[in-house]
Amino acid sequence: MQQGNLFTGIPAVFPQEIFETLLEQPGVRLERILSRGQVTPPGQWYDQDGDEWVLLLQGQARLAFADGSQLTMEPGDWVYIERHRRHRVEYTSAEPAAVWLGLHLRIRNPAATPG
Amino acid sequence: MQQGNLFTGIPAVFPQEIFETLLEQPGVRLERILSRGQVTPPGQWYDQDGDEWVLLLQGQARLAFADGSQLTMEPGDWVYIERHRRHRVEYTSAEPAAVWLGLHLRIRNPAATPG
Repeated sequence: MQQGNLFTGIPAVFPQEIFETLLEQPGVRLERILSRGQVTPPGQWYDQDGDEWVLLLQGQARLAFADGSQLTMEPGDWVYIERHRRHRVEYTSAEPAAVWLGLHLRIRNPAATPG
Repeated sequence: MQQGNLFTGIPAVFPQEIFETLLEQPGVRLERILSRGQVTPPGQWYDQDGDEWVLLLQGQARLAFADGSQLTMEPGDWVYIERHRRHRVEYTSAEPAAVWLGLHLRIRNPAATPG
């Protein structure tokens, strides 16, 4: 039986965001993401092929979307980001670390989607 | 864009566990579960057709498994429960309420499974 705790194993210092896959099955990937102040590099956007449900578990964060909207997130806040909705991480707290849970729902039939 | 917070909208009193579907897609269902002291009725077991990844976000809880093992859970603790692994909820805290996130991964090809 696999088990763990999402608030343990958080390094005191780390240079880049840490992505850890918690489970992966066809069409589904669950990951923990750790940030200590890291943000998406200037001018870059996430543009994902699958939908993502993302939850902030600890810390504070702010997302920005290509349509100009922003979303400030506190613990317990979740947002469903449709595929190809361009977004960036504008802010994450360093202390405490931002702890995210990301559920990626991938396209079941890639052949049906354009490039 | 759908969004919400998992720590809000928790009634002060409720007679039975509250199950709320956060998202549902083929093969995947994500739900928030709220408990205030409720447990699985004596002699009953959960025996699920699909695997479940379950996370305790707030409160305390204890699971029991049909093999005799028990698992005490604190916030951030998660466990992956394989399908047909019989389990029960033996304890949940009333204050604060136990807040769970359950990710149900259903069988993709039900025709291939008995009964």
